[in-house]
Amino acid sequence: MTDFKRTQSLFNLPDGVIYLDGNSLGPLPVAVSERVHRMISEEWGKQLIGGWNSAGWMVQPRRIGDRIGRLIGAPGGTVVVGDTLSIKVYQALASALELNPSRRMVLTDNGNFPSDLYIAEGLLRTLDRGYTLRVVAPDDVEAAIDDTIAATMLTEVDYRTGRLHDMAALTQKAHSAGAITIWDLAHSAGAIPVDVLGAKADFAVGCTYKYLNAGPGAPAFIYVAPQHAENARPALSGWMGHQSPFAFDLDYRPGSGIERMRVGTPPVIAMAALDAALDVWDGVSMNDVRQASIALAELFIREVEARCQELKLASPRDGSKRGSQVSFRHDNGYAIMQALIARGVIGDFRAPDAIRFGFTPLYIGETEVRAAVDVIADVIANRRWDTAEYRKRALVT
Amino acid sequence: MTDFKRTQSLFNLPDGVIYLDGNSLGPLPVAVSERVHRMISEEWGKQLIGGWNSAGWMVQPRRIGDRIGRLIGAPGGTVVVGDTLSIKVYQALASALELNPSRRMVLTDNGNFPSDLYIAEGLLRTLDRGYTLRVVAPDDVEAAIDDTIAATMLTEVDYRTGRLHDMAALTQKAHSAGAITIWDLAHSAGAIPVDVLGAKADFAVGCTYKYLNAGPGAPAFIYVAPQHAENARPALSGWMGHQSPFAFDLDYRPGSGIERMRVGTPPVIAMAALDAALDVWDGVSMNDVRQASIALAELFIREVEARCQELKLASPRDGSKRGSQVSFRHDNGYAIMQALIARGVIGDFRAPDAIRFGFTPLYIGETEVRAAVDVIADVIANRRWDTAEYRKRALVT
Repeated sequence: MTDFKRTQSLFNLPDGVIYLDGNSLGPLPVAVSERVHRMISEEWGKQLIGGWNSAGWMVQPRRIGDRIGRLIGAPGGTVVVGDTLSIKVYQALASALELNPSRRMVLTDNGNFPSDLYIAEGLLRTLDRGYTLRVVAPDDVEAAIDDTIAATMLTEVDYRTGRLHDMAALTQKAHSAGAITIWDLAHSAGAIPVDVLGAKADFAVGCTYKYLNAGPGAPAFIYVAPQHAENARPALSGWMGHQSPFAFDLDYRPGSGIERMRVGTPPVIAMAALDAALDVWDGVSMNDVRQASIALAELFIREVEARCQELKLASPRDGSKRGSQVSFRHDNGYAIMQALIARGVIGDFRAPDAIRFGFTPLYIGETEVRAAVDVIADVIANRRWDTAEYRKRALVT
Repeated sequence: MTDFKRTQSLFNLPDGVIYLDGNSLGPLPVAVSERVHRMISEEWGKQLIGGWNSAGWMVQPRRIGDRIGRLIGAPGGTVVVGDTLSIKVYQALASALELNPSRRMVLTDNGNFPSDLYIAEGLLRTLDRGYTLRVVAPDDVEAAIDDTIAATMLTEVDYRTGRLHDMAALTQKAHSAGAITIWDLAHSAGAIPVDVLGAKADFAVGCTYKYLNAGPGAPAFIYVAPQHAENARPALSGWMGHQSPFAFDLDYRPGSGIERMRVGTPPVIAMAALDAALDVWDGVSMNDVRQASIALAELFIREVEARCQELKLASPRDGSKRGSQVSFRHDNGYAIMQALIARGVIGDFRAPDAIRFGFTPLYIGETEVRAAVDVIADVIANRRWDTAEYRKRALVT
């Protein structure tokens, strides 16, 4: 059994805050600051350039990749860390299209992150050889998979509603149609059990600043299925992905397996934060996390619906069809979320009308959920959101 | 006059070390650790997701870009920070080729970073429409610029020898032939005065972990000349480069000017380190740095040549034709460098036979140069490099 009292003690949340936004930016694990300080002072400060070898900086992207791999069902040596999620999406999609050269259609849905769509648009525009990005509704993805599709590019958990795609079933459908699958796990890794190998996903990508709590702008990761590892050609052929980076050859030769998905110099300070943040997961069972998260979300939905009838559930009611977050709709969602934040209940708003709450049992329990609902009920019942200040949009929502 | 005693006090170099490898990884500025700690504890820890607005995380890539811009002659609003140098090279080259669509040749030289060549190879291979990467000797670049060239992709300072390209002259030649120029400033920014605007460079890119001392894997930067800013199309069209990232539109619309060169979520912890590292440059004149660096390098060359005749100068003898580093050749260069490092003189080795020393007046003075030469002279005269241990190659050299 996972000891959530222990994991809760590994975070340092500010007083007066109920943090239900771990799906946007995970909170600070206590150990991160000390670990980063040590990296800066002891490794960079004292070992200087030697740290690439002596402190293991050079091999971190693989070593930490394996730590993430454990959380998403990826075998050792199939995950590497670096860059941002957008870059990893680009590499995965470019590789997938090259592995399926006779087709010209990429299938995605309008519940995917717009950022993934932008990257796909940019790549297809750059390729400039007749590729189309087909964007359907999430429920229409399965029916849209046919033998014209080169690759499917889907996010397992819808960032707006928490709706879950069935990764194994859609992958199987895609494979039977001859398509390659790319799965974005941004709202999956650390939130729900994932089994990329079992689901036969071809490529998977994700970020580490949400449920993995590695800090704002923390590095991303990419998984490449073993059968593609030696064939995938990342469009971004960087020196760290070269077979022999320090031979300084003039010609690119892709590195072995997942190594070729590395691009530039790894971000070592950020890697130290990520490494410390992953320590939280030692001894944690993803199945326990999932069970606890569903229980918290069900409690939340039940209480909110009983006390705030203006709020309409935007997420699947069935916990097994939902990630680790719950959204409600309200025409004044933006102002409501501002009022909640001002009262210490931190969720977020996603246009046009969704207020979104993440449930992360690592540091959130039933007490916090009940307290959050009390605040929400007060804000709704007494229209505390209805002020000019709360209606004014900020830069980032 | 720049006060180098003051700048020297802003670094924390280990005792017993003479660090002549700032051209590979700058040493730790004292202020970095505290600034990063503050970002982690006070910003991430307390402001959580709100930090994107309240702590200015979202606007940092431009704000810090402007700080770097001051060091390379770039006007405000023309430089943005993020990703790695390789990613920025890819964006610059993709943009340049699209701005010059009728040509199919990219010109570079074999003194360029192999990593830049790899990125170009990957892009041209991905474009798959008849592009050629022409790699000539550095001295042949000027003559090779003709009206077949779409873009030149050159590094101002040769990483092996310190040889300087004449950025203004080659840019002028390129423009007169109708080519677009991309300049890699990895060994220029913070090392020598650079004037991207005056030289009329079209694109410039660089890293911040060498002479800008921002730590291993610190973010890169990109400059886009004002006349291209609204026309350049980065192949990597990320959500941070979108005109309105938080509208969550499904279609990509490039942001205004340099903003479109942003890709994914900015690496905030690394940005804090970079911001603190740039404080060192307040009150520093690049011309003073240049003058002092040439004086140190000339002293070094004179003394090494007088005392170590086995070592053959691999760098231009004329200081005005050399960046802030000096290389010597020796068949046993690798082992010699290992022997030097073991004795506290940290330079580095670049295949096949160059030992390389960087001269950074911010934290290196005449005393250190003389002390380094004493060690080098001892290692050479007494063949202290000639051991099995020193001959054994490490992962990173």
